[in-house]
Amino acid sequence: MNIDNANEIAVGRMMEARPVLVGVATAQDVIPGMADRQLLHAGPPLEWARMSGPMQGAVIGAVLFEKWAKDEEDAIALAVNGEISFDPCHHHGAVGPMAGVISPSMAVYVVENTTHGNFAYSNMNEGYGKVLRYGAYSPEVLDRLRWINNDMAHLLRNALAETDGIDLRALLAEALHMGDEGHNRNKAGSILMLKALAPFIARVAPTESAGEKVLRVIGDNALSVLNPVMAACKAMADAAHNVENSTLVSTMARNGTDFGIRVSGLGDRWFTAPAPTPDGLYFSGFTAEDANPDIGDSTITETVGIGGFAMAAAPAIVTFVSGTPKDALNASLEMYEITAAEHSHFTIPQLDFRGTPTGIDIRKVVELGLTPRVNTGIAHRQAGVGQVGAGLVRPPMEVFTDALVAYAEKYDL
Amino acid sequence: MNIDNANEIAVGRMMEARPVLVGVATAQDVIPGMADRQLLHAGPPLEWARMSGPMQGAVIGAVLFEKWAKDEEDAIALAVNGEISFDPCHHHGAVGPMAGVISPSMAVYVVENTTHGNFAYSNMNEGYGKVLRYGAYSPEVLDRLRWINNDMAHLLRNALAETDGIDLRALLAEALHMGDEGHNRNKAGSILMLKALAPFIARVAPTESAGEKVLRVIGDNALSVLNPVMAACKAMADAAHNVENSTLVSTMARNGTDFGIRVSGLGDRWFTAPAPTPDGLYFSGFTAEDANPDIGDSTITETVGIGGFAMAAAPAIVTFVSGTPKDALNASLEMYEITAAEHSHFTIPQLDFRGTPTGIDIRKVVELGLTPRVNTGIAHRQAGVGQVGAGLVRPPMEVFTDALVAYAEKYDL
Repeated sequence: MNIDNANEIAVGRMMEARPVLVGVATAQDVIPGMADRQLLHAGPPLEWARMSGPMQGAVIGAVLFEKWAKDEEDAIALAVNGEISFDPCHHHGAVGPMAGVISPSMAVYVVENTTHGNFAYSNMNEGYGKVLRYGAYSPEVLDRLRWINNDMAHLLRNALAETDGIDLRALLAEALHMGDEGHNRNKAGSILMLKALAPFIARVAPTESAGEKVLRVIGDNALSVLNPVMAACKAMADAAHNVENSTLVSTMARNGTDFGIRVSGLGDRWFTAPAPTPDGLYFSGFTAEDANPDIGDSTITETVGIGGFAMAAAPAIVTFVSGTPKDALNASLEMYEITAAEHSHFTIPQLDFRGTPTGIDIRKVVELGLTPRVNTGIAHRQAGVGQVGAGLVRPPMEVFTDALVAYAEKYDL
Repeated sequence: MNIDNANEIAVGRMMEARPVLVGVATAQDVIPGMADRQLLHAGPPLEWARMSGPMQGAVIGAVLFEKWAKDEEDAIALAVNGEISFDPCHHHGAVGPMAGVISPSMAVYVVENTTHGNFAYSNMNEGYGKVLRYGAYSPEVLDRLRWINNDMAHLLRNALAETDGIDLRALLAEALHMGDEGHNRNKAGSILMLKALAPFIARVAPTESAGEKVLRVIGDNALSVLNPVMAACKAMADAAHNVENSTLVSTMARNGTDFGIRVSGLGDRWFTAPAPTPDGLYFSGFTAEDANPDIGDSTITETVGIGGFAMAAAPAIVTFVSGTPKDALNASLEMYEITAAEHSHFTIPQLDFRGTPTGIDIRKVVELGLTPRVNTGIAHRQAGVGQVGAGLVRPPMEVFTDALVAYAEKYDL
């Protein structure tokens, strides 16, 4: 058995994967194995009782969105009584930012990895302020969610149907040359997506005002592309999953309570530990006391070599996540220590076009005592307050040591 | 007399200027002092006989566009016989890239400096390939120019009329944080403009296909924003012009034959010398033998502290203009040596958000023997072949020494 060879295969598949945004569809129509009355959520598996504030809020909101309950109280009763089931997005080829709740009738982006043929999905980005992904579920939140899931999604579905798809690997590669890191900073990527879609939106818009509104909503939201990017990363990560003998991380995700990873050579087993609280800059009026433990599937970006791993490409991000441009450079440099490859498509101009550090090797993490660096938004611990800051987080070392022990057991080392 | 004080005033005005894109109009309706049968052109004054290939080609094209002549031969006869007059764009508050020819019925962007009240103008960007600004004038070139000047300009005029204007200083500041330097690299700026205009284009488009086409043409052209940006820079530079005692450069421009500068404290007098040929990377099939001497008003960007002066913000540009990301850093660092200020609005994340070097002081240029660094496209020396490369150029030292002598004479030093 040669672990390095296995890792080379895994990271090679991750980098060869070419994720293309091919459509928008209704979750239950396309997401494999999604049951009736089931909600998908971010991170590793989690029951209602252990869910944090923003996750419970997002569940309540999704139940109301689906009209499975008439009010908050009824929605909670359904959840408490086990009348709705929960499953990680990751078990269904899907990912979602923050709470990451996807309900059956929600619209999702459909991303196809045209190299290996697998698909991945993510929900629509709702923008800023009071939004479901931070656990808000007031009538305005649900109204907006309905407009996004009906009007906007319908228009985007028709617009995308007119395209040959949007090559998200190419889009990300370009965005990294335009100051994005692809996780917390998606300014360039979002308007690159706008650029690609705008002519088709104009073509298929049922009215001038419908086209105008969708173009404004996408253009004004610097996170518009985050969800399709996350689905793209999921498609890349899944291509690297289940490579026998590989010690590379194929999933990192948080549910607001636990941080979990999966390892390519260890199948679908999760290794989890309590989710830490991010360090970072807080918006005016908030402090670390307000922060929820780390939450969301967006760590899929770091899993495939962007986000915190590509910080050097995004020096302007430090005004948002703290630190200096030099720290941003060092962040990427540090991640080369624990990764298997330099990305063949994602390069960092600031490092003489060196490929981003890609493919986290649990052996290196444990040996060096150096955990991956993750950029993240910080959620308020209460449902629906929203984002209170942005910063940095590192997964608990325990998940890597546990995974390495399991690896030694499975492979008789 | 305190020269430093005068320069502080001049560079202060340059940086306080807030250029806003307020409209699109027909050149002769808005450009002050534009005569009948007059063509404006890039750079310092120039008669037909001394014009280079691309400049003569652009003149022929503009004459045909205006229908002043029925064919190339007639157009040349008009020019040779003095039946059309030529004047620099810069004498009319205008600027244009490469040949920079603006004819009376062409559409122009209108930029207002809302701080000081002056206006500036630039023509529409035609995109790549065979275009008037490189001296092409075949029927396809003229057809495309007519579509741009009629259909597209009309739509943009109506779209802009619905906005409160686009703050181009803010747009440029953001673009510098997204890997642009604002002269040769305008990828981010162009899609930031698209983002700002797209909803209004959808609102006012007469048909779906008209909206679709304009959104595609703007989005697909990574130089879309160059012309409004140049007008914005002209508005900033003009605000710093005619400050008594100031030794700062308020104009740098090339006409394909001569390189010329003007100095704030020396009024409207040009100091010129033969234009050098840029050094750079040539497109496949072309060499330095094909290059025209330096041409265009786009050096207005360096004049106000962006372009080559902001290279450090745009490391990815080196794949286009040659050099390494470190050279890009050094280019900006070098320009601090010859400038009066660090820009209060344009900052470079890679240099810990230091303001760009702004306000070229002819004293420092001469004293240090260090000329400004300019990024530029390279035109083929024959009319209409188009761009053959991109690279770097430095103005001839002679224009600065001549200006300094003139300054000493005027101010009795």
